[in-house]
Parts: sequence; structure tokens; C-alpha cells
Amino acid sequence: MSDEEHMRAALALAARGLGNTWPNPAVGCVIVAADGQVVGRGWTQPGGRPHAETEALKRAGAAARGATAYVTLEPCCHWGRTPPCTDAMIAAGVARVVVALRDPDPRVDGEGFSRLRAAGIVVEEGLLAEEAAALNAGFIKRLRLGLPLVTLKLATTLDGRIATATKESRWITGPESRRAAHALRARHDAILVGSGTVLDDDPDLTCRLPGGVPIPAPRVVADARLRIPPGARLVRTAREIPTLVATTPGHPDSALAPLREAGVEILELPPGPGGLSMHGILTALAARGITRVLAEGGSGIAASLLREELADRLAWFHAPMVIGGDGIPASYALPLPELAKAPKFRRVAHRTIGADVLTEFEREAG
Amino acid sequence: MSDEEHMRAALALAARGLGNTWPNPAVGCVIVAADGQVVGRGWTQPGGRPHAETEALKRAGAAARGATAYVTLEPCCHWGRTPPCTDAMIAAGVARVVVALRDPDPRVDGEGFSRLRAAGIVVEEGLLAEEAAALNAGFIKRLRLGLPLVTLKLATTLDGRIATATKESRWITGPESRRAAHALRARHDAILVGSGTVLDDDPDLTCRLPGGVPIPAPRVVADARLRIPPGARLVRTAREIPTLVATTPGHPDSALAPLREAGVEILELPPGPGGLSMHGILTALAARGITRVLAEGGSGIAASLLREELADRLAWFHAPMVIGGDGIPASYALPLPELAKAPKFRRVAHRTIGADVLTEFEREAG
Repeated sequence: MSDEEHMRAALALAARGLGNTWPNPAVGCVIVAADGQVVGRGWTQPGGRPHAETEALKRAGAAARGATAYVTLEPCCHWGRTPPCTDAMIAAGVARVVVALRDPDPRVDGEGFSRLRAAGIVVEEGLLAEEAAALNAGFIKRLRLGLPLVTLKLATTLDGRIATATKESRWITGPESRRAAHALRARHDAILVGSGTVLDDDPDLTCRLPGGVPIPAPRVVADARLRIPPGARLVRTAREIPTLVATTPGHPDSALAPLREAGVEILELPPGPGGLSMHGILTALAARGITRVLAEGGSGIAASLLREELADRLAWFHAPMVIGGDGIPASYALPLPELAKAPKFRRVAHRTIGADVLTEFEREAG
Repeated sequence: MSDEEHMRAALALAARGLGNTWPNPAVGCVIVAADGQVVGRGWTQPGGRPHAETEALKRAGAAARGATAYVTLEPCCHWGRTPPCTDAMIAAGVARVVVALRDPDPRVDGEGFSRLRAAGIVVEEGLLAEEAAALNAGFIKRLRLGLPLVTLKLATTLDGRIATATKESRWITGPESRRAAHALRARHDAILVGSGTVLDDDPDLTCRLPGGVPIPAPRVVADARLRIPPGARLVRTAREIPTLVATTPGHPDSALAPLREAGVEILELPPGPGGLSMHGILTALAARGITRVLAEGGSGIAASLLREELADRLAWFHAPMVIGGDGIPASYALPLPELAKAPKFRRVAHRTIGADVLTEFEREAG
């Protein structure tokens, strides 16, 4: 197996952690002995520790001596809640470390490489760096911009409707798409919806996958007018799964108290010109360590994210039916001054999924 | 090569005629000598004659004696504008005829088979019958229901918008999709639009493909209020390519005369409850021999076709952008009493096409 093949394996391991490692990155590590045998594999564990390298070294044991370690992100060199991974690699006698991506965290940022090289370890950097950057786009965006990566998920008819005029939306997409939507939840740190979605659909926004997920993603409701009813599923389950309600300041205690008593955390944010600012909500989430947000609608959330250029990725499920012009639109008016200003996306994946089609996009740099 | 492989070849030949053989079906024929050599190939020629069998027999010449003929549709046995194909096959000494589909035309409908069998020819029926029926769905629908097959073509954003609020629509889809849309025109007998599309876009609805097309498809405008301006491209080119304007009776001669003088044919149809009836327009087109109609919008035409269950197929181009809720919808309100009543479709093909995705559907039997 080539260096690249081992690194691809490490990236696949890293992906297992997505949605469960925040605020830490999701890292993968493969350790290969001099004879080419894989002696250890590891990935960042739920909650962000132990780190991938620690996991892989533990499995490799004495076989790590003289081995090559393939790591998707530069090993940390600072004491956090765990000892530095560089020290563990040095102690284990690893001879060579191949890394995909330098860690943009200012506490690392090349310092991990220096530490390893100073101990006589051969270090190579940049193998599949682009793939590693895409995988940890949320971790990187939060470090650089103080914002999480946002995936806007939409389940619409061919004509872009999320519900009929009477708000009937169950079910537009088929069971296969709904399972895929649950898998999307599992790979994100937090789930964001507008209060209209809570009022219309009363979702619980949990991830129902066989085997469950290690860390359920906090649910965040953008709710400037504090419309969420205390009887909503999200409120009733707030003690099991964190629920945040982002709202404007000044709501009376009598309105806030029932939510707080149910375990909901209230996030009071200064309003922007058009009400609650999506940028403000996302900044507050990033400050709490959230690196990946899945926005699940409705039309107002989609419009805000698109308008503020905050939707980094789209996961668009198109179901094979048409609702027509009185249906609820995927996104309210942006509005657009001209077609050239329409938010544009680059297709990165597409597949049929049951009767539906799922197309995934990344935002085109404006 | 197996019987099935030869029939697939005949079906591929038949497809070359689509859009150019009306009111006749598009048929393909492959003649294979006893030693397995293909000695003749033919397909229905532009205008519907010569027939595929005649073409293939002409190429085969004396080699047709003792050969097998693979034909996608039962050979005709009646004198139309050409002598019966059954007689030509008998005269050529063909030993065996393999046919995909019985011709539902009451003048044939098994009679072709009888004629061949009476002459001592071995006849086999039903090989790839489903594929042959799909290929000639327009011909069959016209015979059975007096209506043409309708393909509704839509080029929208991901959120199902065909234009911005200010009706800007050039270009939502990319050049590859626009080329594919021209190829779609080539495979249909007539192109249908609403008068709004004429007023907004002033299209010529011609098929600009390298090499051109043998028979340009008539262009049909649904225009109850007779809004089409005499200066429209469709009117100005009506002498080169047939242009029909379907409208309600009673418009003053002063309004009709300029159109008629430009060569436009006026089709006065009794109005239905909601204005011009799409069923009425399509029936009139079928009566003229049209078997395949490509409907290219706008929102009113789409809504009428969907509402009246007249859109048999969809060709939906989704471009990777979002316009938002104030954009022009793919279809006006149907309106739907409930989600279960939404027009549903079965995906038959889908592919990426440049930056866009093209998905093709057939209507689910309601």
C-alpha cells in the first residue's frame, strides 16, 4: 500500500468522528510497521478525546517502534485536557510521521512538526491536504472566522416546495432520504431550525440511526419573537438533549421561565437590522465550540443563510413530485436585485436515493 | 449477435426518426442474413416515409432472401401513401420476421402478422415490446386517446424558479443544458409555450443543432387573450416554420389579420371553465397528426398540464443556484387540496450536465 492509500484510510477513520469531536477536529491515524503491516488505527473519540494518535499508538503497542504514522492533522504539541500527541509519538519510537494538514490552531501551527523533527522523526506534510481541509472545514472555519461551517439541508419537490399551501409536508421525500437526513444530523455538531418549523412540524430533531450516536447534537431554535410553545417536543426533551433558543433581549421573565425550567438555554442576542442576525447566532454557537451546524429550515432560515452568505454547503433532496406556486417555498425572497447576484453553488456529489435525488453543493466563492 | 441485440439495434435506428415521422410511428429495421451478417438497416424517413422496412430491404437487395428481419413495430399491410411493407417483405423472400410491438393502428393490429404468416414467413412477436412501446408512446397515445404525448421541460434553480422577480431568466441553466434542450426539441413533433413566455422572452423555439433537423417542429402558442405581438420572432418566422396560435373564438379580425398575414395559423378553440383548455389544444394538435409535444413553459402552461394530468414526461434541468421566494415559479398554483394529490412522477433517467442536473420522469398512473 502506498502512502496515499494509508492516508485515505486515515481520512476515512477521521470522518467517523464528525459531529462528535467538537470543539476538537476529527482526526484519523494509521500506524504502519516497517514491514508494511498496519499495526494501529485510531480516530478522535466522542467528546474530542482521546485523540486519534493516542488511540492508534495504544493499539500498536511496541510495534510502533520504527513505524510510520499517517495522521490527517498535525499532531498537537500542547497540554490540553490530554498530554501532547507529539510526546506520545516520540516516546513510542515512531520513525516517520506523514501528515495531511498543518493544524491552523495557533497553539500548534507547525510547532508539532518542529517538536517531532527535533526528536529525530522524519516528518512529511501535505499529503491529501485538500481532502483533509474539506473534512475539517468546520474546525478550520471556526478558528479562522469564529463561525461554524453551515450545511443547509432541504427536502423539496422538484419545484422547490417544502410543504403545501396548508403546510402539509409529511412526507415529501421518501424513507431512504429521511434516513440519509438522520445520517447528516449525526455528522454535525448542532441542528438549527426556525421557530416556524417548530410550530408547524413540532420536530424532535434527534438522530435516529441504528446503534444511535455517541453525543446527540444540541438543537438550536432561531426565535426572535419567542414563539416556541413550552409543550414543543424540543422543550419537553431539553433535559436529555441540549436545546438552545436564540432570541432577542427583552422578553418578559414570565415567557422565559417555563422554557428555562424545562432545561432550555436562552441565548439573548442583539438584533440585527432585519431581526435576529444569523451571523450573531452562528457566532454564539462557534464561541461555544460548535464547528458544524446543520440548518434544517424553514424558508426564513434558508433565506437568512443565503442572504448573509452563511450557507457553506447544501444537501438538497428533490422528491419526484410538484406542488405548484402556492406551496411553501424552500427559501423566502432574498430578494435578488438581478440574476447575476443569485447565490451559486458548485456540485460536489449527487446520487439517487430511493425515488429522490440528493445533490450536494459547496458555495461558490462570491 | 442474439435476436435481442439485433432488436436493440433496430430500436436505436427507430429513435433517429423521433420528431420527424409524425403522424407515422418512428420504426427501425435490421435485416440479418442466415450466416449472421447484417445486410440491411433502415428507419422511418423524415415525413414518415419511406418506411423502415423499405429502406432496409433496399439496402439488403438480393441478400434479403432467406434472411431475418427485426422490426420495432408490426409491418403495415395496408396501402397508404406507400405500398404495404408486408408485401415488400414477402416479395424480397424474407424467411423470418421478429417484431417488438403489435401496431395498435386498427388498420394493422395483427393483420400484418397474418399476411406474413399466410405467405409462409415465420413471425415472432413481443421481443423488447416494452422498449418499443416507450419509444412510440406518442404514436400509441394519439391512436388510443386522440392526444399527443407531452414532455414538460423545465429549467429551474434548485428552488424551482424559472426567473427572478423581474423576469430575468438568461441564463439559469448552462450551455450544456441549453444544447440538450435543443436536442429535446429535435425529438418532438411540436413545441408548445404560453403567450407569457413569448412576451417575456421572445423565443424562436427553433432547434439549433449541428447539421440541423429535417423537419422543423411547428410552434404552438396558447394565447386565450391573443396577446402575441405581430413583431414577435415566432410571428416573423412563421413563413419558414409553421406557427399556430391557439386562442378563444371572438377576437376581432383586426387583431387576427396581422397574424394571419404573417403566416400564423389561428386555432380557435372553445374555452374550458378556466379559459383555454389544454386538453382542447392538445386534441386539436393530435387531430393534425402531432404525436409528441414538448411544452417549454411558462408557469401557466406547466400548471395547466399538471392540473389536467396531461404532462406524461418531465425533463427537469436543475441549475446550482437559488433565486428565493419572489422568483417566478416553475408552475403556478394547481392548487392542491392535500399533499397526497400532488402530481407524482417516476424517475427514468438522471445525469449531470455541465454544472446542472437533468432528471427525466414519467407520470405515475394516478
